[in-house]
Amino acid sequence: MGSTVLSGFVTYTDKFSKMKKVVFVILFAISLLTLHAQSPDILKVRAYREQHENSWVKQYLSFLSMPNIPSVPADIRLNAERIMEMMKERSIQNIQLLYPVTKDAAPAVYGEVLVPGAKQTIIFYAHYDGQPVDSTKWAKGLHPFKPVIIRGAVKEQNEIVNFSETITLDPEWRITGRGSSDDKAGVMAMLLAYESIRANGLSPAFNIKFFFEGEEEAGSPHLNEILEKYKSQLASDLWVICDGPVHQSGKKTVIFGARGDAGMEVTVYGSKRPLHSGHYGNWAPNPALLLSKLLASMKGDDGKVLVKGFYDKAKPLTDAEKKAIAAVPPPDEQMKEELGFMEEEIKGKSLLESIMLPSLNINGMQSAGTGKLASNIIPTIAVANLDLRMVPGTDYAEQQQLVEAHIRKQGFYITRDEPTDAQRKQYPKIAKVISKKGYNAQRTPLDLPVAQQVIKAVQSTTREQVVLMPTMGGSLPLFLFEQILSAKTVTVPIANHDNNQHAENENLRIKNFRDGIETMAALMLISPSHLKVE
Amino acid sequence: MGSTVLSGFVTYTDKFSKMKKVVFVILFAISLLTLHAQSPDILKVRAYREQHENSWVKQYLSFLSMPNIPSVPADIRLNAERIMEMMKERSIQNIQLLYPVTKDAAPAVYGEVLVPGAKQTIIFYAHYDGQPVDSTKWAKGLHPFKPVIIRGAVKEQNEIVNFSETITLDPEWRITGRGSSDDKAGVMAMLLAYESIRANGLSPAFNIKFFFEGEEEAGSPHLNEILEKYKSQLASDLWVICDGPVHQSGKKTVIFGARGDAGMEVTVYGSKRPLHSGHYGNWAPNPALLLSKLLASMKGDDGKVLVKGFYDKAKPLTDAEKKAIAAVPPPDEQMKEELGFMEEEIKGKSLLESIMLPSLNINGMQSAGTGKLASNIIPTIAVANLDLRMVPGTDYAEQQQLVEAHIRKQGFYITRDEPTDAQRKQYPKIAKVISKKGYNAQRTPLDLPVAQQVIKAVQSTTREQVVLMPTMGGSLPLFLFEQILSAKTVTVPIANHDNNQHAENENLRIKNFRDGIETMAALMLISPSHLKVE
Repeated sequence: MGSTVLSGFVTYTDKFSKMKKVVFVILFAISLLTLHAQSPDILKVRAYREQHENSWVKQYLSFLSMPNIPSVPADIRLNAERIMEMMKERSIQNIQLLYPVTKDAAPAVYGEVLVPGAKQTIIFYAHYDGQPVDSTKWAKGLHPFKPVIIRGAVKEQNEIVNFSETITLDPEWRITGRGSSDDKAGVMAMLLAYESIRANGLSPAFNIKFFFEGEEEAGSPHLNEILEKYKSQLASDLWVICDGPVHQSGKKTVIFGARGDAGMEVTVYGSKRPLHSGHYGNWAPNPALLLSKLLASMKGDDGKVLVKGFYDKAKPLTDAEKKAIAAVPPPDEQMKEELGFMEEEIKGKSLLESIMLPSLNINGMQSAGTGKLASNIIPTIAVANLDLRMVPGTDYAEQQQLVEAHIRKQGFYITRDEPTDAQRKQYPKIAKVISKKGYNAQRTPLDLPVAQQVIKAVQSTTREQVVLMPTMGGSLPLFLFEQILSAKTVTVPIANHDNNQHAENENLRIKNFRDGIETMAALMLISPSHLKVE
Repeated sequence: MGSTVLSGFVTYTDKFSKMKKVVFVILFAISLLTLHAQSPDILKVRAYREQHENSWVKQYLSFLSMPNIPSVPADIRLNAERIMEMMKERSIQNIQLLYPVTKDAAPAVYGEVLVPGAKQTIIFYAHYDGQPVDSTKWAKGLHPFKPVIIRGAVKEQNEIVNFSETITLDPEWRITGRGSSDDKAGVMAMLLAYESIRANGLSPAFNIKFFFEGEEEAGSPHLNEILEKYKSQLASDLWVICDGPVHQSGKKTVIFGARGDAGMEVTVYGSKRPLHSGHYGNWAPNPALLLSKLLASMKGDDGKVLVKGFYDKAKPLTDAEKKAIAAVPPPDEQMKEELGFMEEEIKGKSLLESIMLPSLNINGMQSAGTGKLASNIIPTIAVANLDLRMVPGTDYAEQQQLVEAHIRKQGFYITRDEPTDAQRKQYPKIAKVISKKGYNAQRTPLDLPVAQQVIKAVQSTTREQVVLMPTMGGSLPLFLFEQILSAKTVTVPIANHDNNQHAENENLRIKNFRDGIETMAALMLISPSHLKVE
């Protein structure tokens, strides 16, 4: 693949030899405009990475082959143990599992590198659990827990690389598997970054701690308990969160906040038993229709959420945030082309504008069978899973209450359990609504010195302009770090934007694997004099 | 179970001994009002049935254990062969498989009993294929193709009868399994009825032919071909169709028509790959929302179909039909209580009124995963399966076109295949619509002599008033018999109304199994002088 690209380039320059000089001048001008120094330390890290890459990838494939769905505690535990082993191999100290007070929940894996004399601490956060999987939906040859490397982005038919320790990996190839990007990539990049700086005799100027969560994809239900319980051990100046994808342009990205997240599950009811659609259709209520009408009522044709008060409490952007957004290359047209659609949901709003708003999204819906499993019946229930995203100012429980009020306004009686016979006789429309525990949004001000220092560190690894985002669209329970530990957080994602996070065919681009290690190493080498938090 | 009921009754009469005489007088008055003679021939059939019932049930359980989904031709073939064997055992003649011109489709199983000198012919129709199954949805201990007998109606927990040839079967027990009611019950009742009259030395006064279809649940795609190909062999005066449930009151039922049926499958599209709902939610279009809005637009809050012209061509009811409907005991309140809902879909219309109208029903819908399979994504597609029912006057292809016009009016571009990249760039909303082959409604006039004669025969088996329905809500391709063979059809269902037809936990009540055999026997013994078709 690498040599094909090269020969392609040679052909190109031969063919258009007249343009050679012009091209060169343009490239040179661009490089001047975007020139940023790559630090000598990072070049050492790179050299070391190049020597060890294939054995690292081998170790990573083995790590990815371990199922990591939070609903299977035994699997989660095996992952935690594997991370402890990998930490030990890299001489990380005081390795332990941090359990919440509720003993049977997934532990966070902790480790530390205490620097003599250092008065400041950075904690590196990633999570090792993954979203639920449906392996039948993965492309042929791919499987959530049988990780392989494929040539190029995921397609319907993928060419699988016969991986060996001597093969030369192409930067465009992908490592596939659940967690490959979200977020075992974060765990691995941090451990390999630390290995690289240590092997090069580089020493961080402050204490480094590692904190790898085991139930982020389940909504971090015990993170608050763990942070409370280990408050002094986790005291720190900054948390670096590695999760999510970089900007769609492929440029390195620093993000200063995340939206909050909370799930809801809505089930509506028809007849107690499935009915023949000919004998009873249009007489017995159809829950699929009831649910459709309910969901349709939640959003206008302009894509805006119609739930009363839904946008009311969202805080307006600061001037620094507005400025940062204006500087981000808008990915909208590229993404529409790539994703195959023409019109955005909230009409007239760009992607960046949309993620600055609270959102309501249907994750899935189902009523009886479709396709080959369809039969001529009236279903008994219809279910939809919704997720709400919060921005600063909006509270997840309040937003859920607004949605519940909307459901009531549509004529539904809300229950928390299966409806009883008495309820079925009393209410014409019944919805079981489960409003799950969630969390709120958080943003670190862009103009804080510590924020600026992180930007500088990431910028030291690349000649391209780093993209700065006031918030990511996705969610992380960042507010907890601020609330419980009074720590600032900055998110530094490393995955490619087309990583199929949370879905089938999840993958990590080799280039992003490489960049991620260098980025994390740069953050471990931040100059201590700058790590001041106001 | 029987003795529990009895002891309950004794307690009741003891407790309210003063009311005993009043109750008796009322019961006597009711019995006088509803008294109908049971013919001596039917009593002979009953005696024979009582002797052989358990070995018949054993044979039926074995028949039900054979998977009979039309999409698996090898299974269908095995069922057809089993029916041929069962016909042979009962000395039915000229047994053969009738194939359509398209050789690989499911065959109809044919057999005949030619009566010397008879100039008239009745053909008995049932079908041996079943609806698709999802065995995971069946109650504990029940399975579509592991038929068992349970005590009483289906519940969440069911007591399974340890069946033997000597056990006494309770009329309220149920035989469970796919096809137990729809429609292997029809096949079995006809074969056992014929065995019973033959064993009693009773001879039909006309030729009897059997025709058991093998792809009714697939929409009878080749029935027309088979009827055309075997036109002379299938020439007849009357087709007796045994399919569907009796009236909800449990009374024996004769039905003079059926609605037509046609399926549609609608798929709407979002992004080409699943997206993280935080990073892209409310910007990338959500197909679950698009589908919800589309489905919601198809019906008003009053439950009426909003597709333009949908009701326009439905023929009004004749006076005889109106009179028959008025005489049917309205099951609405009983059914709402039993099914656990309060309000009908088309507001203010009774069940009987509703099934006199063309209908549009959602059979199932799906987009990504729900419940434990839900993840924080924006789905890529959403699918709904719809079924349309036709009444006399409406044409299925025209009704499908009206629905398609409605989909276009909602802003969708309609395609028949997966949308291409070019289409995705050109149209903001795309729906793949598959309008499947269907068929139209049919009704036999209630006042025809042959119709009256069938009523008389069924009435001869019961002391209760037979329920007469101008049409069933369900569908059968009855129009084909009229169109191709110029034959009249009358439908005589035998299954219990709560048989879970087409769904999980399908079942046949023992009482209905018994009644079905007697009803079919009575129809085989119609007096020849009355079998005149105008």
